[in-house]
Amino acid sequence: MSFDYDLLVLGSGPAGQRAAVQAAKLGKRVGIVERARMVGGVCLHTGTVPSKTFREAVLSLTHVPALARGIPVERPRPTMEDLLHRVNGVIERELDVVARQLSRNAIDVISGTARFTDPHTIAINGGHLDRHASAERILIACGSVPAPPPVDADHETILTSDDIVRLPRLPRSLAVIGGGVIGVEYASMFAELGVEVTLIDRHERVLEFCDHEIVDELMHQMRQKRVTFRLGEAVHRIRGIDRPRGAAIDLESGKHIEVDAALFAIGRIGATRQLGLDKAGLAADDRGRLKVNERFETEVAHISAAGDIIGFPALASTSSEQGRLAVCHMFGVEAKPTAAGFPYGIYAIPEISMVGATEEELTAQKVPYEIGVARYEEIARGQILGDSSGFFKMIFHRETRRLLGVHCIGTQATELIHIGQAVLALGGGLDYFLETVFNYPTLAECYKVAAYSAANHLRSSIACAVT
Amino acid sequence: MSFDYDLLVLGSGPAGQRAAVQAAKLGKRVGIVERARMVGGVCLHTGTVPSKTFREAVLSLTHVPALARGIPVERPRPTMEDLLHRVNGVIERELDVVARQLSRNAIDVISGTARFTDPHTIAINGGHLDRHASAERILIACGSVPAPPPVDADHETILTSDDIVRLPRLPRSLAVIGGGVIGVEYASMFAELGVEVTLIDRHERVLEFCDHEIVDELMHQMRQKRVTFRLGEAVHRIRGIDRPRGAAIDLESGKHIEVDAALFAIGRIGATRQLGLDKAGLAADDRGRLKVNERFETEVAHISAAGDIIGFPALASTSSEQGRLAVCHMFGVEAKPTAAGFPYGIYAIPEISMVGATEEELTAQKVPYEIGVARYEEIARGQILGDSSGFFKMIFHRETRRLLGVHCIGTQATELIHIGQAVLALGGGLDYFLETVFNYPTLAECYKVAAYSAANHLRSSIACAVT
Repeated sequence: MSFDYDLLVLGSGPAGQRAAVQAAKLGKRVGIVERARMVGGVCLHTGTVPSKTFREAVLSLTHVPALARGIPVERPRPTMEDLLHRVNGVIERELDVVARQLSRNAIDVISGTARFTDPHTIAINGGHLDRHASAERILIACGSVPAPPPVDADHETILTSDDIVRLPRLPRSLAVIGGGVIGVEYASMFAELGVEVTLIDRHERVLEFCDHEIVDELMHQMRQKRVTFRLGEAVHRIRGIDRPRGAAIDLESGKHIEVDAALFAIGRIGATRQLGLDKAGLAADDRGRLKVNERFETEVAHISAAGDIIGFPALASTSSEQGRLAVCHMFGVEAKPTAAGFPYGIYAIPEISMVGATEEELTAQKVPYEIGVARYEEIARGQILGDSSGFFKMIFHRETRRLLGVHCIGTQATELIHIGQAVLALGGGLDYFLETVFNYPTLAECYKVAAYSAANHLRSSIACAVT
Repeated sequence: MSFDYDLLVLGSGPAGQRAAVQAAKLGKRVGIVERARMVGGVCLHTGTVPSKTFREAVLSLTHVPALARGIPVERPRPTMEDLLHRVNGVIERELDVVARQLSRNAIDVISGTARFTDPHTIAINGGHLDRHASAERILIACGSVPAPPPVDADHETILTSDDIVRLPRLPRSLAVIGGGVIGVEYASMFAELGVEVTLIDRHERVLEFCDHEIVDELMHQMRQKRVTFRLGEAVHRIRGIDRPRGAAIDLESGKHIEVDAALFAIGRIGATRQLGLDKAGLAADDRGRLKVNERFETEVAHISAAGDIIGFPALASTSSEQGRLAVCHMFGVEAKPTAAGFPYGIYAIPEISMVGATEEELTAQKVPYEIGVARYEEIARGQILGDSSGFFKMIFHRETRRLLGVHCIGTQATELIHIGQAVLALGGGLDYFLETVFNYPTLAECYKVAAYSAANHLRSSIACAVT
């Protein structure tokens, strides 16, 4: 039987892109299906890239560098237009990078909405004509959409994260429902802009997978920017109101909140609804997700899936790697799994990053450990940057002195974490940090300071420990 | 024979501080001699800390973030007063950190100028009284001073780097004599401020120890800010002029330059002149430096030396480590040498950092290598930051695929380099970067992009290489 393609990729977000390019590099005939004006996926259009560009705009436009404090600089309160000023530019530019990469690798980009008609055939419903394409292998990488709010989003007062980068004006008050990564990121950005933010989550903690001390520090800093946390509380009812235009929220505890806008960040669901999965012999779970094995194959062996659609961790970085690995597996190319431990980056203000285990996990597993900490205010670079609240923690095994985890909140945390990640992956430990010279002044010196602090805690035979 | 101290440290810069604390942790009686108001050494008072704080002020006050471009923000041209606004604050704060650390470790701080009277005794000429102190071991860590200009520095038109953080006003034009690290750093900072800068060096290249491609990129960017390079040229004569007040410089090539100020950055010399080294049986070389063995011992076994005074590399980071190691050696504590390869950080605008070998070194050594590069403009974080000129290069051994060197110019280069440093020290190579997931969007993705580029160059059996 002959197919139009060796591989057809559904979706051109990080997983689909990387998969298509990988297959092309292996000499395969590759097509990638994406809706018009959506090349790059939600990552590029409403997700990671716009939200991180928005964040940078918030910092650029509100954050007076410590070194400039006391010096008069006129800084009008930014409007939504100011804040979104560059988002489209960055999107256009990244779109260009993706389009050039696909074209350089001779990948057919087929515009339209994909739907299975049988396990090897996809109907593509485009703007101008309907087409069919068949492929020996298919990779489903069509991403996710925000889980729908309990009342319809009107995109102005009842919002999902997709609406943020299209908001016409900055609300004065905002309720964020959901204390996961997306909810916390936007709550902290709007708080930074002076918006009065209330964050509601039915759990007792936000960012439950993170180190508790780091999250406590984040909450402390967000509270200083007037964020109200309503944890262990659930929304009983929400409705739009007219004067003033906004939303009225009743919590199950009886509390009543009126805000200009309410952002529902209650997770994301796989964008599988229109795929006609049944025609392929597949079914998604109740959150629209597909189950895959360790080779990223679905229950139908020639159909693989990668990215948000297979659930956790649903990060641009890991999705891209999944796309690469899925293709290597399907075409019998040896590919090692990702080095143990990918990092998490939470682009709140301040940013958070972690790699490896948390204290909570190690305590549950009864692994004996010791920690070492550093505060940005203790190191020269922190002083120079004027970030006096940054906090950094490393966890070492008490006996082997191996590094077990790194947790950081503060300027450049998402970059800084990669040093620890390398030491973790390559089996280094406390001695690496004690013996290593870091550029001075840099934030990377946190590793040195925290290592000395851990060495002192260990009261070990390393008489050379210095703080 | 009984001594006042087990260890007397001369100088409280990075080497002296770390040495004193290290010895105290070993239970030794320690004294540290420093001139009044100079605790922390030149690093803290006129060197690294003020110059890096000044640099941050330049960036804060002149650099319009890409995301804010096009948005009207009133930004008056900064004055020298604005720029130095926070320098003293940062110095005070760091001074505090040092003083607290010394006191916490029960180290005597003795104010005054130190001079040997015999190999075990130091006369301390203080403000109020003269004292003598004897010690079993002595560590000379009294740093360096700028090499004197051929005409006397008047601190306003003829300058050394010590004068920068005390300049009353910003010159309109500046000649920098010397294309080493300090000369290039200040030349680029003043160029960023709109000062017309001419950089003169008798060598054909600036920063000779750096990767040539990186230096070419730096020069390109500095030229865009109107820096004129006069390389392979030497100053024949320089004299102060009155109307307008400034300096007139004749080059040996016959060129004539008139500038508001001339900064001599022609190296630093060991601050040994007043030490009375002959009384200790020691002599400095013609640049005031002391020779030490691999245990940091001078020719007189109980006297060690560390920091700028022993010459290359004379970085705050390496000096601090030398201080620690010197003390471990003198008291018989096992201490491993620094992990192969400390990083260099050059805080020019843009900043440069490197670790490991350069292409030039490997070519001379006939080591077969392949490079992989990444440009900030190719990665999302570079786009978001608006740094489109950043450039990143990794060098891998062609056969073993081990990492040999990392070279970077651009935003946060001095931080970014530490990821490569860890992989280098722990013996990782190309595969580490190919298999590792980095936070998205971060500048650390340069490692991934450059690794793919190297893998493609290697045209190897890694069919999994993707660009």
